[in-house]
Amino acid sequence: MKLYFEDFKPGPFGSFGPHHVSRDDIIAFATEFDPQPMHLDEEAAKRSMLNGLSGSGWHMCSLLMRICWDGFIHRIASAGAPGVDEVKWVSPLRPGDDLTVEVEVISTRESKSRPDVGFVNISNVVRNASGVTLMTAALPLMVLRRVPG
Amino acid sequence: MKLYFEDFKPGPFGSFGPHHVSRDDIIAFATEFDPQPMHLDEEAAKRSMLNGLSGSGWHMCSLLMRICWDGFIHRIASAGAPGVDEVKWVSPLRPGDDLTVEVEVISTRESKSRPDVGFVNISNVVRNASGVTLMTAALPLMVLRRVPG
Repeated sequence: MKLYFEDFKPGPFGSFGPHHVSRDDIIAFATEFDPQPMHLDEEAAKRSMLNGLSGSGWHMCSLLMRICWDGFIHRIASAGAPGVDEVKWVSPLRPGDDLTVEVEVISTRESKSRPDVGFVNISNVVRNASGVTLMTAALPLMVLRRVPG
Repeated sequence: MKLYFEDFKPGPFGSFGPHHVSRDDIIAFATEFDPQPMHLDEEAAKRSMLNGLSGSGWHMCSLLMRICWDGFIHRIASAGAPGVDEVKWVSPLRPGDDLTVEVEVISTRESKSRPDVGFVNISNVVRNASGVTLMTAALPLMVLRRVPG
């Protein structure tokens, strides 16, 4: 059963995950996209400001997408996404972390230019298994309306 | 020679890339992080609103990081990055695209809480080889000051 624009109301939406992140995952992502020494090499990471191997912030963004896809986005009558409103990298991603994402619907509005589409603005809090917030993100989604205006 | 906070002034900063993106790259990223059919399967993609296989927006974000790392971030006396101010996905990433990134320094300011650090706010325009804008992004960087305040 697909989720349409009308199915989203401001308020808590759900919690998704956990999704396990290994040391190999962190190093593979960093090798391809963000080869800073603190994301690649344990010894360099110990000397860095983050005091130990940490994952790329962009890796966390990509994992947020995956956790949300598995959790609910695969069920959305999606009309795409225009971008990202804001991301804050709060605490480092560590090898072995099990990530959960708490999703809240902040606001919804019908598109002015497309009567078949609405915008759903969600906030996401990414936490590790200890409940520490690693990242927050505000994302606009475009979702088909069940009943076009 | 490292780039310090004092080396960044508002105005055009540079153009970086090109960075080639293959069909395999697009499918590999999507398989791991954003398995929407339009990023994975040519036939499903033809039926999608983007009318052909396209890369994940998060893949473009990750490629932006890589192109900027190769281009100049590896030379920065970095103090990290607090997050992402805004990303707009303007046009789809396609198999075979060669991406360039144009970087402009929008503003700089010294940190109020850390006398050794300043913030450098950059804007990024990601284009394909035809000059079409695929993505824009506004990113704050934290950079060490050559002369702490």
